[in-house]
Amino acid sequence: MSKRLTVKIGLIQMSMVENQATNLKKAVAFVSQACKNGANIICLPEMYKSLYFCQKEEHYFFKFAESVTGETYQTFSLIAKKYKAIIIVPIFEKRTDGIYHNSLIVIDEKGNLAGLYRKMHIPDDPLYYEKFYFTPGDLGYKSFATKYGNIGTLICWDQWYPEAARLTALKGAKILFYPTAIGWHPSEKEEYGDVQRNSWMIIQKGHAIANSVYVAVVNRVGFEKVDNNSDGIIFWGSSFLCDPQGRVIVQASEKDEEILIAEVDFSYIDTVRTHWPFFRDRRIDSYEEITKRFID
Amino acid sequence: MSKRLTVKIGLIQMSMVENQATNLKKAVAFVSQACKNGANIICLPEMYKSLYFCQKEEHYFFKFAESVTGETYQTFSLIAKKYKAIIIVPIFEKRTDGIYHNSLIVIDEKGNLAGLYRKMHIPDDPLYYEKFYFTPGDLGYKSFATKYGNIGTLICWDQWYPEAARLTALKGAKILFYPTAIGWHPSEKEEYGDVQRNSWMIIQKGHAIANSVYVAVVNRVGFEKVDNNSDGIIFWGSSFLCDPQGRVIVQASEKDEEILIAEVDFSYIDTVRTHWPFFRDRRIDSYEEITKRFID
Repeated sequence: MSKRLTVKIGLIQMSMVENQATNLKKAVAFVSQACKNGANIICLPEMYKSLYFCQKEEHYFFKFAESVTGETYQTFSLIAKKYKAIIIVPIFEKRTDGIYHNSLIVIDEKGNLAGLYRKMHIPDDPLYYEKFYFTPGDLGYKSFATKYGNIGTLICWDQWYPEAARLTALKGAKILFYPTAIGWHPSEKEEYGDVQRNSWMIIQKGHAIANSVYVAVVNRVGFEKVDNNSDGIIFWGSSFLCDPQGRVIVQASEKDEEILIAEVDFSYIDTVRTHWPFFRDRRIDSYEEITKRFID
Repeated sequence: MSKRLTVKIGLIQMSMVENQATNLKKAVAFVSQACKNGANIICLPEMYKSLYFCQKEEHYFFKFAESVTGETYQTFSLIAKKYKAIIIVPIFEKRTDGIYHNSLIVIDEKGNLAGLYRKMHIPDDPLYYEKFYFTPGDLGYKSFATKYGNIGTLICWDQWYPEAARLTALKGAKILFYPTAIGWHPSEKEEYGDVQRNSWMIIQKGHAIANSVYVAVVNRVGFEKVDNNSDGIIFWGSSFLCDPQGRVIVQASEKDEEILIAEVDFSYIDTVRTHWPFFRDRRIDSYEEITKRFID
């Protein structure tokens, strides 16, 4: 048996309002509380500082963007240092004039900027007009070495792509974090709500199983309407943490703000990969065409 | 709305005995019954004609192998033609002296040999000593055009690899068939049985979701002990068919032989892929390293 390598994960499921200072203040309070409750690695939801403005294509919203070392980093760097915690914080990144990314930063327990990930897969669907705002990431998939072990980070739409999970795991990540903003169109909720959320859970549990890693998903919660000509989005919460066999360790409700805290044991990955040796048998000589759009 | 393209799928969950003629006779009876019940595409479990002999490394068992156009093809060709059905039949393939594969053939409604797939991912674990018997497949991933649409075929251990499902779907398959032989070690069943079978279901539903395809899994059932020095395997049945959103359409029990028959609608894939456009957004410029064993 490997020596246990236990780490406490903190997931912040929160709702947002129009006033960004209010969101920032709340995020700081929740992250601080998670730290006080013993969390070693904490993750906030995608675009934690604003409403999900991608419901509308509006140039004004580009003003919300900040640099990698902007207000978000300055604020959470102090929290990370104070509590000696690793914090994963999504940011709406302004890289330069006309180039914006849907990103996240990893801040280490000394308050240093330890990593940057830029969302690779960008959606564009009714009320999720992200291709208008975000240039697709150009940093590839990331696993960051931390004092608690290697952690992988992806963002929302990435969660539907087995390739993204695989490449992050192949880089050594023992846990995949997915800050997220996903919800229901009110008119679809009754008929399709359950199947949509179930699909979202199944595919991410599938990534845990395929790669023998932990998976942590952090969604926002609450109803938001940015465009008066639309019905808005009911964000479905349901943030969860699952183990390398896809077992849910802890899950939040679909309506309430919650600070989820749960322990993982990174040494368990060694056990699972020895008993389910998927990595041993990958046919890497046969995967080349996965870089094709369609094989026709 | 696309015009409905409904097809009846027949999945044969059966148990096997030592006498191969008995297994063949039963498989013929079950497939014929499925045809009479209206099935258009029928699939048998992995290595349908014998006990799961890979529980033991024994040279004698190589005698069970047959050529692609051997007894299995000769027998089911007649059934396929008689009932105008597509039949997917696993075979233990002898390709030449010293080269054996864990394969399957696709027989079309005229009785012709329409396809051959050789299992790409070969396991080797206690009581699943397949690397001793089977040379890994060298035909790659397959989607076969049939009169009912394109069908993809993979075999058992392939089911743990998102790459295999993805490449098969990229070749046009609208449904993935997984003939399978998976079960519990008796000593593990009580403690780990549920989580093992759940992982197996989740990852395959995940393939359906990631690729917006139907998935059909056909397992054997019953207790088999080939090596008197072992405890044998309790094959867990639970064959199932799920839709492109991972919803189970029909599932067999874990203990009984069953002929599952259910309708799928291939036009639904178009609907799902339009509403969940995962294929549109794949970052094919970023997947190249998936051909690496590990990125270290």
